[in-house]
Amino acid sequence: MNKIQFQCDYNEGCAPQILQRLVETNLEQNIGYGEDPHCKHARELIRKTCEAPEADVHFLVGGTQANATIISSILRPYQGVIAATTGHIAVHETGAIEHSGHKVLTLPATNGKIQAEQVRQCLVDHYNEDGPEHAVQPGMVYISYPTEYGTLYSNQELTDIHNVCREYRIPLFVDGARMGYGLASKECDVTLPEMAKLADVFYIGGTKQGALFGEAVVITNPALKKDFRYFIKQGGGMLAKGRLLGIQYEELMQNDLYLKLARHADEQAERIREALLKKGYKMAVPSPTNQQFFVLPNDHLRELQEKYVLSVWGHADANHTTVRICTSWATKKENVDKLIEDINRL
Amino acid sequence: MNKIQFQCDYNEGCAPQILQRLVETNLEQNIGYGEDPHCKHARELIRKTCEAPEADVHFLVGGTQANATIISSILRPYQGVIAATTGHIAVHETGAIEHSGHKVLTLPATNGKIQAEQVRQCLVDHYNEDGPEHAVQPGMVYISYPTEYGTLYSNQELTDIHNVCREYRIPLFVDGARMGYGLASKECDVTLPEMAKLADVFYIGGTKQGALFGEAVVITNPALKKDFRYFIKQGGGMLAKGRLLGIQYEELMQNDLYLKLARHADEQAERIREALLKKGYKMAVPSPTNQQFFVLPNDHLRELQEKYVLSVWGHADANHTTVRICTSWATKKENVDKLIEDINRL
Amino acid sequence: MNKIQFQCDYNEGCAPQILQRLVETNLEQNIGYGEDPHCKHARELIRKTCEAPEADVHFLVGGTQANATIISSILRPYQGVIAATTGHIAVHETGAIEHSGHKVLTLPATNGKIQAEQVRQCLVDHYNEDGPEHAVQPGMVYISYPTEYGTLYSNQELTDIHNVCREYRIPLFVDGARMGYGLASKECDVTLPEMAKLADVFYIGGTKQGALFGEAVVITNPALKKDFRYFIKQGGGMLAKGRLLGIQYEELMQNDLYLKLARHADEQAERIREALLKKGYKMAVPSPTNQQFFVLPNDHLRELQEKYVLSVWGHADANHTTVRICTSWATKKENVDKLIEDINRL
Amino acid sequence: MNKIQFQCDYNEGCAPQILQRLVETNLEQNIGYGEDPHCKHARELIRKTCEAPEADVHFLVGGTQANATIISSILRPYQGVIAATTGHIAVHETGAIEHSGHKVLTLPATNGKIQAEQVRQCLVDHYNEDGPEHAVQPGMVYISYPTEYGTLYSNQELTDIHNVCREYRIPLFVDGARMGYGLASKECDVTLPEMAKLADVFYIGGTKQGALFGEAVVITNPALKKDFRYFIKQGGGMLAKGRLLGIQYEELMQNDLYLKLARHADEQAERIREALLKKGYKMAVPSPTNQQFFVLPNDHLRELQEKYVLSVWGHADANHTTVRICTSWATKKENVDKLIEDINRL
Repeated sequence: MNKIQFQCDYNEGCAPQILQRLVETNLEQNIGYGEDPHCKHARELIRKTCEAPEADVHFLVGGTQANATIISSILRPYQGVIAATTGHIAVHETGAIEHSGHKVLTLPATNGKIQAEQVRQCLVDHYNEDGPEHAVQPGMVYISYPTEYGTLYSNQELTDIHNVCREYRIPLFVDGARMGYGLASKECDVTLPEMAKLADVFYIGGTKQGALFGEAVVITNPALKKDFRYFIKQGGGMLAKGRLLGIQYEELMQNDLYLKLARHADEQAERIREALLKKGYKMAVPSPTNQQFFVLPNDHLRELQEKYVLSVWGHADANHTTVRICTSWATKKENVDKLIEDINRL
Repeated sequence: MNKIQFQCDYNEGCAPQILQRLVETNLEQNIGYGEDPHCKHARELIRKTCEAPEADVHFLVGGTQANATIISSILRPYQGVIAATTGHIAVHETGAIEHSGHKVLTLPATNGKIQAEQVRQCLVDHYNEDGPEHAVQPGMVYISYPTEYGTLYSNQELTDIHNVCREYRIPLFVDGARMGYGLASKECDVTLPEMAKLADVFYIGGTKQGALFGEAVVITNPALKKDFRYFIKQGGGMLAKGRLLGIQYEELMQNDLYLKLARHADEQAERIREALLKKGYKMAVPSPTNQQFFVLPNDHLRELQEKYVLSVWGHADANHTTVRICTSWATKKENVDKLIEDINRL
Repeated sequence: MNKIQFQCDYNEGCAPQILQRLVETNLEQNIGYGEDPHCKHARELIRKTCEAPEADVHFLVGGTQANATIISSILRPYQGVIAATTGHIAVHETGAIEHSGHKVLTLPATNGKIQAEQVRQCLVDHYNEDGPEHAVQPGMVYISYPTEYGTLYSNQELTDIHNVCREYRIPLFVDGARMGYGLASKECDVTLPEMAKLADVFYIGGTKQGALFGEAVVITNPALKKDFRYFIKQGGGMLAKGRLLGIQYEELMQNDLYLKLARHADEQAERIREALLKKGYKMAVPSPTNQQFFVLPNDHLRELQEKYVLSVWGHADANHTTVRICTSWATKKENVDKLIEDINRL
Repeated sequence: MNKIQFQCDYNEGCAPQILQRLVETNLEQNIGYGEDPHCKHARELIRKTCEAPEADVHFLVGGTQANATIISSILRPYQGVIAATTGHIAVHETGAIEHSGHKVLTLPATNGKIQAEQVRQCLVDHYNEDGPEHAVQPGMVYISYPTEYGTLYSNQELTDIHNVCREYRIPLFVDGARMGYGLASKECDVTLPEMAKLADVFYIGGTKQGALFGEAVVITNPALKKDFRYFIKQGGGMLAKGRLLGIQYEELMQNDLYLKLARHADEQAERIREALLKKGYKMAVPSPTNQQFFVLPNDHLRELQEKYVLSVWGHADANHTTVRICTSWATKKENVDKLIEDINRL
């Protein structure tokens, strides 16, 4: 018997509506590299949803690629990107940012988040240095929404970071690999149009949100738009059959599909969280989205692992382990029912 | 009315068998990043087809990505890659190789090909220089099979290049973005198992050969295998849902599908070539594969362009244009019939 | 009146003996790029002093250049260099390491030093990770001797780090920009020949140690020797008039000049340290070499700053400042006399 | 007996006046990294000589370093630098430009020079391409004055290139490693102030022109000035004892020393050229500066090589060799007398 996987949010293929459209359009003849009618339509839908009629929209295949392409399009060679120590670009992308020549300037994170004051201090410190040119110049800010720990920046927190960035004239980039799970969360107080105003560039993740793959990069700051397609191509991110990305985002952006899929995941995650809390387990991080981090006794964990695949995040102490339990757009309600039952039996 | 496209070999989606399998497997739960059972099975099929039981097989999304990842995994920082002036990496990848720090050391090409003696001379010249360390050291050879002009290296030509590479202990890398169209050609005298012996690393292209996307990298030289997954991840090429690549190659490598699709394209290209030759048009390059390059009078070209999309390759003289006509696995026989009719009418 | 500078160890030109030799040899005709007789002789002297007859010796102009050249000659693209958070490459080289594509993997430092167990843990953690290829692979260790805080690794500490490196087959690189000030210290229990055995590559700093400029890189690990001159040239470090480096190191390595100059600096630093300790000031770091770090009351500091240039290192608290006082081969005994007098008067 | 060297223009140390100043100033205490009074004064002198009061002036150590630093400060990651196939950056810098991520876009050279129309065509071709983002975008022009073959661009030729650059809004960079030998030539019709107007950035070479080392970078285009010191530091080019560069340029820029030294070299080269022409030898390139390229019969060459070191440039045919004969600021008139005598005796 296969175990049920709550390991990550990319265990399945894609939302059936999307696959259906891929089947229907399969033998259409389209030009390549993202200049086909599907991509154009998808871009239009995204601009509309974001209430950002002037934004540039580009489709990339994956998150590491999107991060590296965006960041290297913004920074000058001697600049680095400010990020949380737990930021995806700082720890889980095999140094893709450094590979493009840039330092990740890490700030200590609390529950995956950094705060405006930390960003300001980092900038102040740099320019106060005697001979700032001996150190890497902070050239932009990177945050994830939701963070790698499922947490959310409040509208106020985002606005504060945005304001520091404006003051120092550096762009704010929001990694939205799980953007939908954030926007669909009960605790979210930011809308996509607000995100489009607060960030200079961000992306609306598809890979973890119901598409086979794909990240829709939205550039609202005009200064960052120039020649972005060169960056995509040079970075190996320009899909020959760009239509595949266009078609997927056409579906996601229609009939509220993107948020519906995300809401489902968040709801299932909430059910699991409630069950775990009721049993007295300790949250490792207070996450209101599809990733739940809990500290479990090792023997309870082993018991669950007989039926479920969870993600081991670290050893809390000799007898406890921190685990990540992840739902997705594809998580079946009945599988969550089973998991909750088994949690209750622990 | 939509024009019929003979513009490139990635105008359509993918072979219906493949899409069917994607539908069937869509809700399977698989682990990510290419470690799922489909990828494992596809690797096994490829090793078997290549008669290379020890080869490492990795799946990447696109050609530019595959080229940059492979080349940067081989070269030391001060080395460059020998390639034809017309090689894809030299002209159409926005400097992705240079972006990874390496010079493309170009040799003049004849019909898209370079010869062993040119490679040898390049190496001899470098090491004869007084102070070779003032120049980029040739560190590997890159060729395309078929070339960017649809032409094929003979078994002997490949063997000669292979031997020079062995002598100078540098690897030979074969870009196989259109590998199938080469192997399926009537003029091909190389088999895939022979290719696996002649090249240190090569790839079996999927994007242009019936898959939605994907390139299967085959590393036969043990010295090049170490830590290749780090390169894939760092280069942004590690697809979260690696299964998509596995499933596609499972299909392509079974029931001779890969070569069947390619053979169809080559046959249709041959029909078009014969029609053009019969009418007295001049071949720009003698290609035995799916890309045909012909010199057409401008007014005849304009006439064809009313119904068909062709690829303009350059201006031969004031009254003639060089065009590329491209077939693919998806080219409909009846569309070729129409094109031939229209050619005959010119 | 000019203030007396205790700001750094590169305020003056060079040891007069060296300048004298530059004058004497000025109109000699020599071939360029480090292949002249002076360079050859200097290399021979260094190999002898290090008791490393098989070592390769190369001369570079400065420290940042030496660090970047050495590190990029060792690491593969997906690897990073382990260093102290306070290591020069981590903070004061404008991201030169990242510019060459590599992450600096920082470990918390104590008085500028890291310990073998930290290095081991970093390696263990990496290889224990599920999917290590998603993170940067630790590929070498960088330490400074003395550290950026003037402190020294003991022979035992170096041996322990060396042993972890051997176990994991990664090289140990010792930044010796101030090597002499370390070796000449009373607390040093390592000799240059021992350093040559413990490190795979290190350099004997000239710039801060009596030369106009220059760093002599000593490569003892045969695996790291290949094609190093290509790296030097590519990195812009191959001085056309290489003789200038050869002549300077010929002088430094004869008649014990290198250590004599360093010993003088260390002795003057010791005198200053004693004076400050006697007055009850607190050492910020217990340094036995030419850099002294003390916490001074702000008003006392201001008083000293009227006559002397010191280096402000940070604000200890509202009323105290951490300063660096630096001596060098060129520090005049009478200037130290004056400083001590003024300290005593505070 | 040592052979007399006409091999290159960096066989000796430096002009005695300069060395004298280094001796006189040796024990001065100066702050580092180019912020000392000598550097400031030298910058002022250069601005005055160039009649460019607003120019930024920076001192770097060597030519490869200067080229790589300047070019990487200008280009965006997807851009390349247009250069002659014979340009120093294209052939003799071990791929330093590619190492910084950029392609050198080479144009065929005539006697080391490229022409405005070639540059324009390269730009036109790029932007006419269907999908320009698939190729490297030309982002600047690099020329050498004099060229690597000793030849000179006329004022008109420079103006034409300048105008194309203006039209396409890309900077013109002039590598002046041998600038003085050009300006001092009888055939030169450009002044330094004119150069400062035609180029957006250029450098006044020291290493080959009488200094121990050093290249003075002059940035006249305000858009290229920002944060240049970060580039210098990151590239390993920020000399700790920056004073050494300041002092050398103070001397070179006073009393017309720079041009006097160059004129001497050009005159000696002219004497040699006349002697060779009178004997009927064929010029390989018509150079009016300190480098002379001639085709000599192999037996005559061998005869000369018994007493002189010349630079072998290539094999003209089975019986003839192309050689470079190089004079410099340090070439002794009596050695040229001897060489001419020996030429006459051939």
